[in-house]
Amino acid sequence: MNRRSLLKGGLLAGLGLPFISPAELLAQAKPYAKKAKNIIMLVSDGMSTGTLNMADIYSNRAFGKGTHWIQLYKDAKVNRALMDTASANSLVTDSAAASSSWGGGMRVKNGSLNVGPKGETPQPILQKFKQGGKKVGCVTTVPVTHATPAGFCVNIDSRDGQDEIAEMYLKLKFDVMLGGGAEHFDDKRKGGSIIPQFLAQGFKVAQNRDEMMNLKNSGPVIGIFAPDGLPYEIDRKNSPELMKKVPSLAEMMNKAISLMKDNPKGFALQVEGGKVDWAAHGNDTGGLIFDQLAFDEAVGQAIEFAEKDGETLVIITTDHGNANPGLFYGDTYKDFDRIQHFKHSNDWILNQLNNASAEKNVTELIEAGTGIGITPAEAKQLLTHFSDIVPGQLYNAANLPFNELARILGKYTLVQWAGMNHTADYVELTMFGPGSESLKPFIKNYELHNFMLNAAEMPADFLAPVVKS
Amino acid sequence: MNRRSLLKGGLLAGLGLPFISPAELLAQAKPYAKKAKNIIMLVSDGMSTGTLNMADIYSNRAFGKGTHWIQLYKDAKVNRALMDTASANSLVTDSAAASSSWGGGMRVKNGSLNVGPKGETPQPILQKFKQGGKKVGCVTTVPVTHATPAGFCVNIDSRDGQDEIAEMYLKLKFDVMLGGGAEHFDDKRKGGSIIPQFLAQGFKVAQNRDEMMNLKNSGPVIGIFAPDGLPYEIDRKNSPELMKKVPSLAEMMNKAISLMKDNPKGFALQVEGGKVDWAAHGNDTGGLIFDQLAFDEAVGQAIEFAEKDGETLVIITTDHGNANPGLFYGDTYKDFDRIQHFKHSNDWILNQLNNASAEKNVTELIEAGTGIGITPAEAKQLLTHFSDIVPGQLYNAANLPFNELARILGKYTLVQWAGMNHTADYVELTMFGPGSESLKPFIKNYELHNFMLNAAEMPADFLAPVVKS
Ligand SMILES: [Zn+2]
Ligand SMILES: [Zn+2]
Repeated sequence: MNRRSLLKGGLLAGLGLPFISPAELLAQAKPYAKKAKNIIMLVSDGMSTGTLNMADIYSNRAFGKGTHWIQLYKDAKVNRALMDTASANSLVTDSAAASSSWGGGMRVKNGSLNVGPKGETPQPILQKFKQGGKKVGCVTTVPVTHATPAGFCVNIDSRDGQDEIAEMYLKLKFDVMLGGGAEHFDDKRKGGSIIPQFLAQGFKVAQNRDEMMNLKNSGPVIGIFAPDGLPYEIDRKNSPELMKKVPSLAEMMNKAISLMKDNPKGFALQVEGGKVDWAAHGNDTGGLIFDQLAFDEAVGQAIEFAEKDGETLVIITTDHGNANPGLFYGDTYKDFDRIQHFKHSNDWILNQLNNASAEKNVTELIEAGTGIGITPAEAKQLLTHFSDIVPGQLYNAANLPFNELARILGKYTLVQWAGMNHTADYVELTMFGPGSESLKPFIKNYELHNFMLNAAEMPADFLAPVVKS
Repeated sequence: MNRRSLLKGGLLAGLGLPFISPAELLAQAKPYAKKAKNIIMLVSDGMSTGTLNMADIYSNRAFGKGTHWIQLYKDAKVNRALMDTASANSLVTDSAAASSSWGGGMRVKNGSLNVGPKGETPQPILQKFKQGGKKVGCVTTVPVTHATPAGFCVNIDSRDGQDEIAEMYLKLKFDVMLGGGAEHFDDKRKGGSIIPQFLAQGFKVAQNRDEMMNLKNSGPVIGIFAPDGLPYEIDRKNSPELMKKVPSLAEMMNKAISLMKDNPKGFALQVEGGKVDWAAHGNDTGGLIFDQLAFDEAVGQAIEFAEKDGETLVIITTDHGNANPGLFYGDTYKDFDRIQHFKHSNDWILNQLNNASAEKNVTELIEAGTGIGITPAEAKQLLTHFSDIVPGQLYNAANLPFNELARILGKYTLVQWAGMNHTADYVELTMFGPGSESLKPFIKNYELHNFMLNAAEMPADFLAPVVKS
């Protein structure tokens, strides 16, 4: 017998107030009286639970206070859910299918961007919001043409068509696109640069941090600050040159908000910490924690904006787990605290090694990057993995021994990894502001599409058909 | 500027209703008018996020519906939090310090049971509830003298003193203790069996499932169904002999509830899925998923009782992450679905192998246990790990190649592991019933002690001093 039938039967009548759960109370109460004029959706791509909590523990240890994300829980300011992230063809999604589920309101196969298993092409959510009068945009630390931003913008069979996606952006004329991926716009493209066409169409184009900071609210803008992904935050903040050229995620987000916030019908913005996923694929602890903290800086500032604004729904989540890292058992805090001395990512270290490197090169480079003095035996072990890489050649990152370096450094930091790819974990989803009261504690990724449209009180004909999946 | 000061400043005055978060609304509303007469705390020991979600995915795939735990979220019946699980001396707790934090209201060093860093000996929570007139008990799939139940019952320097803990239980005369650990009570103890003393003190003693089922409500009972931990659920349910001898966790819980529920002042019960932790230590996928599902059966039945009863607070959680497993990327559902054919744990497999085993023994045994046909090369690789184990000797479980077998089977199931020990992950905490409305979205483990006492409206002098940690 369930509770509803018990209530009907009056069995609880003698026990004081009827037994109403908090979530039911929320559903009845609608504490937010108005719609979400603005939506900011922040995605830490590929963030396993361990990533969220290691960043918070790091922050507590290094700065004496935790992350903004966890502080929202301590202050009881938000609603939370677990989100099921499966795609149409797998229990484990890729970023294309994940972003499409939010962007198009249906599950597609891994690799597709808003093209369904039967060829369906649901209209992407930023096109809908744009049609509804909102300003729209994406900011990311990976290419603006990458899966997560693209899933909010376009329909295309394969996420690999980043050059085509760049052309689609030219036609869509969205208000703000900021991130990496210059190689899909400039003369490294097949067929040559399309930047002149962006300029001819009235776009402002920023190619470094200063140019971005100077952007004014006068038509669509595109900012691209690296050929592919932006540098890892840990490498950026330890390089004056990169700091000058490349903005932080929070700086990009704040610029995007400032360019869109005065629009009478509001705005919708996706903010992606895309390199959290890349760091997880590389089992790269320094890359992971500092990019998660850079993402968290954006979280803090988005909430600050939303608190002042009062009409902004902030959604904070990830698209899937990745590598399921954890801080493992140790008798003291010392091991994990070593990360406070990290200056560079494992990516930075490994890209400077090749099969001509000596053990001494390895130990010195790792000491420079992390402050950790590995043993000669460990250096030798790492170098064995370079035997099949030809020096002087352009490295294929996939052949670099990220796995082995993570295993070695894990002995010193106690951070360990379960793999180098995405996982089926149900993920953390957090909401703040108008609309968030409707969030149930469990949600499937594609349900977020209509959730956002409903929170913004968009016309019903914008809604995706309600499916079972 | 925070929201509170904004509200004071009236900046939101023109925007309709003030901006009140759902959690704040809950805090004001107190939908449960009465106290928790009964408390059932269910602990899936060492449950990483991946364990919770793989069990749910398994359940969806195998049975067409998810777990009871996740269903509570889908039905929006509960409040949830993340719980920080650190101990007094480490970011990563053991089960003794974790249970002590709940049981005693303060953080102790790993290995201690309610003995603080300065020798503090806070009164364990079941002693308090007993003193307050409640019936109290613990049920577990590991020894009743193990860390998690003991942390609710006793003060002792080291969790290793299980023989002493058994003697303490004799004096405490708690109402129900059910689980494993016979070797700490019977003639395998140093100094001989203390079961006669339990009988002399008026205890009923059950040593198999039938004896347990026949226990009546007439004084304290102790039930011990295995020398050490109970068998893994996957091994139990595939052995008619074990099914006859050993009850399930849900059966033990239901018996405990039935023995205590008519007490006028109610009861407090801890229910531990202790072998989830052991399976995680062994990277034992079959052990893990089926023990998590057995735990979930207890969750479903605890909620069913609480819904009918209306005065029971149910707390569902874990004490720490362990091994951070995940279901990794794959193109189909097929790999994970192999687990539906599993008949035995890796523990069952490995304990039948030794350095005299042939490759054929290995492949046949793994086929019998899991339905998976590993390659001869994989069998050979597994056998290399047995070279230092002497056949005929009592195996030290720690020397069996659990790690290697998990790595091999992970290629077939796509379940992978980040390590073989506990992690610092913030963990899932779920509450149902009276008192649950006070749960904030983030909590430290030791805060649960006073939380439970307050929910039950115990006298204020029972509360632990409020500490900062
Ligand atoms: Zn990825
Ligand atoms: Zn353990």
